[in-house]
Amino acid sequence: MNELKERIKRGEKLSGAIVSLTDPCLCEIFGNVGFDYIWIDMEHTYTSYKEVLCHLNAARSTGTPAIVRVPQNDLTATKKILEMDPDGIIFPMVRTADEAKELIDMTLYPPRGTRGFGPMRAIGYGRDDAQEYVDITSLELCRFVQIEHMDCIASLDEIAENDYIDGFIFGPNDLSGSIGEMGHVFDAPTVELVKKAIAILKAKGKYVGLVCGNSSETIKFWSDLGVDMITAGADWNFLYEQATRTLRDLREQHEKENRQ
Amino acid sequence: MNELKERIKRGEKLSGAIVSLTDPCLCEIFGNVGFDYIWIDMEHTYTSYKEVLCHLNAARSTGTPAIVRVPQNDLTATKKILEMDPDGIIFPMVRTADEAKELIDMTLYPPRGTRGFGPMRAIGYGRDDAQEYVDITSLELCRFVQIEHMDCIASLDEIAENDYIDGFIFGPNDLSGSIGEMGHVFDAPTVELVKKAIAILKAKGKYVGLVCGNSSETIKFWSDLGVDMITAGADWNFLYEQATRTLRDLREQHEKENRQ
Amino acid sequence: MNELKERIKRGEKLSGAIVSLTDPCLCEIFGNVGFDYIWIDMEHTYTSYKEVLCHLNAARSTGTPAIVRVPQNDLTATKKILEMDPDGIIFPMVRTADEAKELIDMTLYPPRGTRGFGPMRAIGYGRDDAQEYVDITSLELCRFVQIEHMDCIASLDEIAENDYIDGFIFGPNDLSGSIGEMGHVFDAPTVELVKKAIAILKAKGKYVGLVCGNSSETIKFWSDLGVDMITAGADWNFLYEQATRTLRDLREQHEKENRQ
Amino acid sequence: MNELKERIKRGEKLSGAIVSLTDPCLCEIFGNVGFDYIWIDMEHTYTSYKEVLCHLNAARSTGTPAIVRVPQNDLTATKKILEMDPDGIIFPMVRTADEAKELIDMTLYPPRGTRGFGPMRAIGYGRDDAQEYVDITSLELCRFVQIEHMDCIASLDEIAENDYIDGFIFGPNDLSGSIGEMGHVFDAPTVELVKKAIAILKAKGKYVGLVCGNSSETIKFWSDLGVDMITAGADWNFLYEQATRTLRDLREQHEKENRQ
Amino acid sequence: MNELKERIKRGEKLSGAIVSLTDPCLCEIFGNVGFDYIWIDMEHTYTSYKEVLCHLNAARSTGTPAIVRVPQNDLTATKKILEMDPDGIIFPMVRTADEAKELIDMTLYPPRGTRGFGPMRAIGYGRDDAQEYVDITSLELCRFVQIEHMDCIASLDEIAENDYIDGFIFGPNDLSGSIGEMGHVFDAPTVELVKKAIAILKAKGKYVGLVCGNSSETIKFWSDLGVDMITAGADWNFLYEQATRTLRDLREQHEKENRQ
Amino acid sequence: MNELKERIKRGEKLSGAIVSLTDPCLCEIFGNVGFDYIWIDMEHTYTSYKEVLCHLNAARSTGTPAIVRVPQNDLTATKKILEMDPDGIIFPMVRTADEAKELIDMTLYPPRGTRGFGPMRAIGYGRDDAQEYVDITSLELCRFVQIEHMDCIASLDEIAENDYIDGFIFGPNDLSGSIGEMGHVFDAPTVELVKKAIAILKAKGKYVGLVCGNSSETIKFWSDLGVDMITAGADWNFLYEQATRTLRDLREQHEKENRQ
Repeated sequence: MNELKERIKRGEKLSGAIVSLTDPCLCEIFGNVGFDYIWIDMEHTYTSYKEVLCHLNAARSTGTPAIVRVPQNDLTATKKILEMDPDGIIFPMVRTADEAKELIDMTLYPPRGTRGFGPMRAIGYGRDDAQEYVDITSLELCRFVQIEHMDCIASLDEIAENDYIDGFIFGPNDLSGSIGEMGHVFDAPTVELVKKAIAILKAKGKYVGLVCGNSSETIKFWSDLGVDMITAGADWNFLYEQATRTLRDLREQHEKENRQ
Repeated sequence: MNELKERIKRGEKLSGAIVSLTDPCLCEIFGNVGFDYIWIDMEHTYTSYKEVLCHLNAARSTGTPAIVRVPQNDLTATKKILEMDPDGIIFPMVRTADEAKELIDMTLYPPRGTRGFGPMRAIGYGRDDAQEYVDITSLELCRFVQIEHMDCIASLDEIAENDYIDGFIFGPNDLSGSIGEMGHVFDAPTVELVKKAIAILKAKGKYVGLVCGNSSETIKFWSDLGVDMITAGADWNFLYEQATRTLRDLREQHEKENRQ
Repeated sequence: MNELKERIKRGEKLSGAIVSLTDPCLCEIFGNVGFDYIWIDMEHTYTSYKEVLCHLNAARSTGTPAIVRVPQNDLTATKKILEMDPDGIIFPMVRTADEAKELIDMTLYPPRGTRGFGPMRAIGYGRDDAQEYVDITSLELCRFVQIEHMDCIASLDEIAENDYIDGFIFGPNDLSGSIGEMGHVFDAPTVELVKKAIAILKAKGKYVGLVCGNSSETIKFWSDLGVDMITAGADWNFLYEQATRTLRDLREQHEKENRQ
Repeated sequence: MNELKERIKRGEKLSGAIVSLTDPCLCEIFGNVGFDYIWIDMEHTYTSYKEVLCHLNAARSTGTPAIVRVPQNDLTATKKILEMDPDGIIFPMVRTADEAKELIDMTLYPPRGTRGFGPMRAIGYGRDDAQEYVDITSLELCRFVQIEHMDCIASLDEIAENDYIDGFIFGPNDLSGSIGEMGHVFDAPTVELVKKAIAILKAKGKYVGLVCGNSSETIKFWSDLGVDMITAGADWNFLYEQATRTLRDLREQHEKENRQ
Repeated sequence: MNELKERIKRGEKLSGAIVSLTDPCLCEIFGNVGFDYIWIDMEHTYTSYKEVLCHLNAARSTGTPAIVRVPQNDLTATKKILEMDPDGIIFPMVRTADEAKELIDMTLYPPRGTRGFGPMRAIGYGRDDAQEYVDITSLELCRFVQIEHMDCIASLDEIAENDYIDGFIFGPNDLSGSIGEMGHVFDAPTVELVKKAIAILKAKGKYVGLVCGNSSETIKFWSDLGVDMITAGADWNFLYEQATRTLRDLREQHEKENRQ
Repeated sequence: MNELKERIKRGEKLSGAIVSLTDPCLCEIFGNVGFDYIWIDMEHTYTSYKEVLCHLNAARSTGTPAIVRVPQNDLTATKKILEMDPDGIIFPMVRTADEAKELIDMTLYPPRGTRGFGPMRAIGYGRDDAQEYVDITSLELCRFVQIEHMDCIASLDEIAENDYIDGFIFGPNDLSGSIGEMGHVFDAPTVELVKKAIAILKAKGKYVGLVCGNSSETIKFWSDLGVDMITAGADWNFLYEQATRTLRDLREQHEKENRQ
């Protein structure tokens, strides 16, 4: 059973972060820290498919679910990722119901969808019965679409009818861009749009996620709007922040010494 | 001119951190943060030689000096690293004057030392005159030895006579181990040993470094003893710390929501 | 002269297997074993382009032809693969005659097709005359399309008119999916479809291939239908099978010892 | 300020070469040699995204601008490359004004274009203000389109109206193919087409580039037509040429010895 | 608790195989197959340290213990491997009691041994208390020495006194070489030597392992001598064997067809 | 039969160059150019063992012998390289007869030497009989020692008695360093030393090689001294040279245009 899917079904509040870099220890670190899931990003990153597999093994070694954002919304990328058996898959920048359906279909074997046959890690490389995987287990995958454009919200009622979608994840930055307010994510126009969309989703009993920065204020802001699943920050900005803090401590101490 | 060497000669207080992981952006991040130098570690890490080269390019792209701790105290490892032209090299676990001399000799071309000929990046892959590099520029390298064993302190007077050594870097953990106090770095036996060694080095006008964790307390503790160059923490523990802090913020917020 | 193309033209029965993993020794192993050709897969795998080049070098070092299944049916992927000079290229999931033509055109320089100029390994990195490659040698490539959908069989008469196609390779699993029988490849509906398609192809004197599992029964089943070129199994399932057999031997022996 | 953009604006004559291979020292070598810019190719090569990042760091470490030709003309590839902050981006095989606009739009944040949010190296991994990058700095990128098809020249008047395009780069080989003269780049039909296009571009005050081989004759030929920015040759053919010359020297000397 | 160590202490019969190649799925495959442990080899292989880390994550993701044979019997290689927290470590080619002690000491922190401080994965990258790891958990590692030389057997009484050694693993090939019978592992001289050594070890209650090929006969042969832990075959020979079997099936079938 | 060994035995004049970089196409390029052998360097480079295997496959794919200079003169490095089956192995910096014997012994199975058992590519991964490899084929390897120190020349009479050594390769730069003349390789002291050593070797009928730069003058200089096998230049300096020449051509042409 897919534990992440169970928790989503129960509507639990979940906390995650993004692995953007490629070192094979990153998912182990995030798993050890205790995140409820790890978001492995291929959209903005230089991570290769092999590195994603290493990340998935590392995440599983800590018992932490891992979800992968595909590098592109197409059949090939989706196929490669699904053969690696992540706990979930994320499609960025979805705009219409047709597009959502086409993407979700890529994750489903016929007759439900259009996924091609070729599971590897997903059937334990031979441990599991392939037919059972095709018929049953492959349905266990968590399927996420990202709401990053006002068009998507305009079609949200229709998109949300697709019962294979496990969660809807807001990307506030691109959403703000789509209404000509790029980057002004905390201003009224973007926030109102998010609120409106959350209302639509909640009315249908849907699970709502959001990806954002990791300041306490940012986390609080979005959490207060009723978001269930918050992915806050990425490895590289965690690194930048703590390194900055450490350098400040070092400089303060050095300056104190210099004054003495 | 090697800027790091100049700053060490002027006795400036310097701040650095360790890059243990392999992503090619890590040295750029640390450089952007503003560290005075970056310590690229090959002793405890899985970093390959090619990844070290990428790190050196990234560090240089930000104008930040990079020093490399060799994976082993031998001629081959030293040769490979030096052909890549780091700003400095660190030899761990030095114990005797003979050993120190042998290691430093590996960084010096004959007749000064035993380094073999084969510079690549160090001569700009053909841009610079090789003879000038052999005769002059290769001397610019910063050479560090690590004091990580009580035997080293017993021989420190003699070791410190070697004028090619630019700095002496304490490794308190292994030092504590060498006196049967493994890990008790803030207890009197280890601290007294460090103090004694600092006194010896300062009396000779030597430059003193130390590698430690990155808590404010730890930094203050060693800085107060008069250490000039502190390398505090590594990428993986910066990551672990900030990720932990972010997860705590997420959980607190989620719990608050749950209570409402 | 492309030896594989010659053998296909002569209608020889050929045996191959799939390299899905990335180790640079895999194609050498398969070549040493004696396969008539090696199928390097990029469709379901995490293999990078650089690893494909290593595979192609390894295959050639054993004198074994190598054919590459592209990661996606587009111009870019095709271009990158063709610059590496495989013995053949495979396009998965072809459905219509237009699609087949568009894909085959990507492998042909104008005026025959749409391939862009930029050969590297394909002209020996400078050893061969580029104009001769463009005009003549580039035609030597073996071009395969995969029959994995009932739509493809519906259009097969038309598709098979394209004389640049050297072989038609059945993918029974996806074919079964396309008629709502996903995975039931040995049941009548899928088998009848394959038989019908083979009849069409043989009537036109076309060369027929198929990719399947590697059990003796499976091989016999498809061979009996008149398939010329069978690609049976992949590295990872060879590994799983033999490892399972070895573990069984070890356990049996251990248990015998335990009983004594 | 983007130095390359400045030089282009001033209409300076620029010299570059192509890095097609993956070693992290290649851009450093080309930078040390003194090229005005380095063209990192992903169109015909096996270079991975991570290797492009290493190349960009290496180029920057020598103060040399680097421009990247995307592996495909799509949003995802463009996004990944732009997050790495090259000095410029090149879109190959542009044919129509709509296509040109769509591609250039991918490099521009809304409301100007369609670029998604997710800068990493482009904001110094946290050093720079993201909003400022979105609003201002991201405009600094050099945007190039390649003229490799007669259709492009037919639409050139219209394409050249797009003021975000900094330069137009001829690809004579593919251009010759588009008029059924593949490879005959120095024959009248292709040359006349180039001349005509240069006239159109110069009349509008546009900056004209061209990519070609590196023989003196080839360079002279295109330069004489008034091309401003010539990218001549790639790492692998430089290697092939000089290795050939060295082998010839060795053989001549050996033969002389043998005759004695 | 180290499960492998527990099973060894209980004298259980254990079955394993060697991972020599580098694909990140290999340990997952062997774990799924059900081996009691996986032997990751660095002695004869091209596997890098980073790939070992990936292997360890993959093994752990299946709950299978992994033991690593070091690339060289020195402090540096040992240190790097131990920071990655394998379940066990194997030292090849041990010959004398002093050498055995020196090697085992490298795995023990002072005052027990000479291991330097720098755990990464071994303390969960920050999850676990480092002092507790140094004092207690680090003792959990399984330590193996290989008996591959007659000198080792001559000193076996003494070597076996070292209580930190968890198991002794015969390497029959090199053992046969050490008595001038290279490769004749099933002939009397080598077999008698192994028997004699097993008798010494069993008399002291020691755990006995052996590494060999994976034919049923070979496994039976060594098992009958009372070996507890048999490591039979490696990934590359599993691949070679099954590929050979599959090719034979293909050829037989093709020939049958040809005869018809 | 090892073709390189045959040519050396016949005293043929041979021409080679060094591959120092890691791209998998480099050995194919050098093989296509037509060198008699390729020298793959691990002494001064960042090349990994896996990359060496890729190089060896690429070299073999062109039918060109490849010899590998080990990263260190020790048993482990030698073992790893030999398992990959190069055509030859080079030991740098040999100084005494004992050292030469110890190194050559590492390449020979007992009772001749000390090589451990574990061939992989060297037995075709299972294609060849391992016993035959141990007894016969493994002797086919070409074994080279480098003369890079005056001590080596002092012991040359004795070293040259070792009949397993196929060739002696001068490294003039380090040789000049060993007599306090670092880099002055064309001055009398170094040249006289080389001449003297060549006389010793030729008197014994030994095969003489030398590694040097690739200018015509340099090649002529050493060739005139009677050297049989000249390795002239490396990939990175070929690149630097031709890139410099191309940039000069570009600048000249641009300047001419500017003057018009």
